[in-house]
Amino acid sequence: MNAEIVAAGTELVLGERINTNSAYLAAQLAEIGVTPVLHTIVGDDEEAFVAVLARAVEASDLVIITGGIGPTLDDITRQTVARVTGVPLLRDAKALEHIAGLFRSWGREMKPSNAVQADFPKGATVIDNPRGTAPGFRIRVGKCEIVVFPGVPSEMKPMWEASVRPTLVGASGEAVVARSINCFGAGESDITEAIKEMMVPGRNPLVGDTAEDAVIKVRIRARAATFEKASGLIEDDMKEIRSRLGLLVFGQDNDTLESVVAGLLISRGLKIAVAESCTGGLVSERLTDISGISAAFIQGVVAYSNESKTTLLGVAPKLIVDYGAVSEPVARAMAEGARKSAGADYGISVTGIAGPTGGTPEKPVGLVYVAVASRRGTTCRELRLRGDRGQVRDRATKHLLNILRLEMASGG
Amino acid sequence: MNAEIVAAGTELVLGERINTNSAYLAAQLAEIGVTPVLHTIVGDDEEAFVAVLARAVEASDLVIITGGIGPTLDDITRQTVARVTGVPLLRDAKALEHIAGLFRSWGREMKPSNAVQADFPKGATVIDNPRGTAPGFRIRVGKCEIVVFPGVPSEMKPMWEASVRPTLVGASGEAVVARSINCFGAGESDITEAIKEMMVPGRNPLVGDTAEDAVIKVRIRARAATFEKASGLIEDDMKEIRSRLGLLVFGQDNDTLESVVAGLLISRGLKIAVAESCTGGLVSERLTDISGISAAFIQGVVAYSNESKTTLLGVAPKLIVDYGAVSEPVARAMAEGARKSAGADYGISVTGIAGPTGGTPEKPVGLVYVAVASRRGTTCRELRLRGDRGQVRDRATKHLLNILRLEMASGG
Repeated sequence: MNAEIVAAGTELVLGERINTNSAYLAAQLAEIGVTPVLHTIVGDDEEAFVAVLARAVEASDLVIITGGIGPTLDDITRQTVARVTGVPLLRDAKALEHIAGLFRSWGREMKPSNAVQADFPKGATVIDNPRGTAPGFRIRVGKCEIVVFPGVPSEMKPMWEASVRPTLVGASGEAVVARSINCFGAGESDITEAIKEMMVPGRNPLVGDTAEDAVIKVRIRARAATFEKASGLIEDDMKEIRSRLGLLVFGQDNDTLESVVAGLLISRGLKIAVAESCTGGLVSERLTDISGISAAFIQGVVAYSNESKTTLLGVAPKLIVDYGAVSEPVARAMAEGARKSAGADYGISVTGIAGPTGGTPEKPVGLVYVAVASRRGTTCRELRLRGDRGQVRDRATKHLLNILRLEMASGG
Repeated sequence: MNAEIVAAGTELVLGERINTNSAYLAAQLAEIGVTPVLHTIVGDDEEAFVAVLARAVEASDLVIITGGIGPTLDDITRQTVARVTGVPLLRDAKALEHIAGLFRSWGREMKPSNAVQADFPKGATVIDNPRGTAPGFRIRVGKCEIVVFPGVPSEMKPMWEASVRPTLVGASGEAVVARSINCFGAGESDITEAIKEMMVPGRNPLVGDTAEDAVIKVRIRARAATFEKASGLIEDDMKEIRSRLGLLVFGQDNDTLESVVAGLLISRGLKIAVAESCTGGLVSERLTDISGISAAFIQGVVAYSNESKTTLLGVAPKLIVDYGAVSEPVARAMAEGARKSAGADYGISVTGIAGPTGGTPEKPVGLVYVAVASRRGTTCRELRLRGDRGQVRDRATKHLLNILRLEMASGG
């Protein structure tokens, strides 16, 4: 069973807003064995929209549309669907009452323009929208079903989950399971080289990879008659990939470096303190983004000035004078100072030159030192990172979390 | 002049990754007077890709494709463009040498699979990619030009800016200027109500708005025969909108709350120190994301535990016992402690309950206190924020930066 996803909205086609609805729906469809084959974004040009939709209903079993069912003149999804299905729009009394009731509950007056949100193509089934004034609808045309949602993600998602997803589960007649193995610390080509025999087009499970901000995800997607069979196929592949990639693997599926490190700290009852310079708080921010981290995270310090490295972390001023703030001795002293001042099991630190200014021939932009202090001593690593300020900060944070992960994996 | 944007990648069509390239390119095209009419995402199905591209080159003057020019078997953009343009693929010696040189500079061996990245449809012009191993290319077919970029945004954007955008400016025969006025501190409907007479469909300049993560952008887009005329039209509108919205306006175009606050601090030679609890480093991270901030940013503290609020910020333990860590007195003491310990002009603080756990009937998830301490005294505000952990942290950070902005605007 194939599906297309259409997002309607001039602000989307002009790039003023990022469309996240289509990716959400595609991932949801893939989970229940429906294959998304094409996404389209179209603006408020009715002829262009009709052309997109007429082609889609011929080519696919399911077309999901988000957006364009608001009360304003540029909301043209209703009439576009009516034209393609060849039926008139009819006003639905129950939906109209729902909209009027919402306005009453907000203490606001319903505008005449809102009434058009109760218009649906003849023969359509209304999809309730408990959170907003735009009900959705679904209608068949030939062998295809069209499903229409509002564009607001917080309205669309509960409608999909409550009213549409349950009616599609099992419709494709096969089960699909998709997983990923997440790696850090090597280039994409090194990782794919190690598993290339598995990355053959048409293989089941299908193995591919994506690289995003230095994290490489090996993606595995299995199809079978039942969920159990697909899961079994995928488990075998995941074991094989993990064994080939070893310590490059930090987690799977939605795991991030910070969620893995936070999980290890919490489960082992260990405490951490962070000392940052060039990353400016990013390391603390990522770790504390994990719910439950307050059991492990004592404190973080963003010691941007040289004085604060001394007052907050106890770094000897002479060390900074002799070696510079961006140096291995200072990184080590920051990690050890963070550990000591917080009474933590781990003190971790990062100091470097994020750019775009501040680099010298000896210490160029991208030179970063990351250090982990523990009861076993202090590990420090020099990094030479590429990219802009944001990328240097991101990669420095990931390398630091990764070194901590490896330290914990080796019993540190 | 109309354009379509195609993103190629199975991970995109399956919803495993959000496509941001198309929105970036659409906004860039709109700026130079080229009208984006349709975006498509297609996977690694060559027949589907050929169908999309064959239709697009008939319908549009320009088709921009991102992605699918990597070294692996599922990268099919090269051969798809060659099929639609009806020419063979040829290997380009100069591009091959560029790729080999990159591998040498990394001290890594070039794999045979990377050589296909030097294959281009016959007659194509190669677009240099200084940052990666996938050069882009452009080729004409009939009245349409196809432009192909790699899918990695950090490679695609500089290639667009350096090699393609300059060649398209002026191609549309009219000038378009797009600007935005950025607001924080009121709902979308309050803001649009204040300027509703200007938000008429078809008006020139066209005035619309987008809301993203509590920042409302009023977007103004003017068309005219010359750049000067379009700029003049837009300036008048921007003045009018600024005057109607007053202090809700924090900046324009790419301004963020942190860039505006950082700019004020740097230009006035003022120093700042940050004390955070529930935001976990996000306030420091955003401020230090601005290049040049080291002149103003002394230090930040993520005082997650009660002890660290006392040791790092001098908050009296009794205050925490009497009022709780999430309270106005503690927020005030954190801001004042941050200012004093760093010897800064401003100390700013945030403490709250980001959730999803940790809420009580008296102090629910989303309760946040933000405070700004200066030589004039301390301002504190209680917030009741909605949303998940990430949203509460984001909104708390924005409110704190906004209060600091208002404090500085009023001469604080």
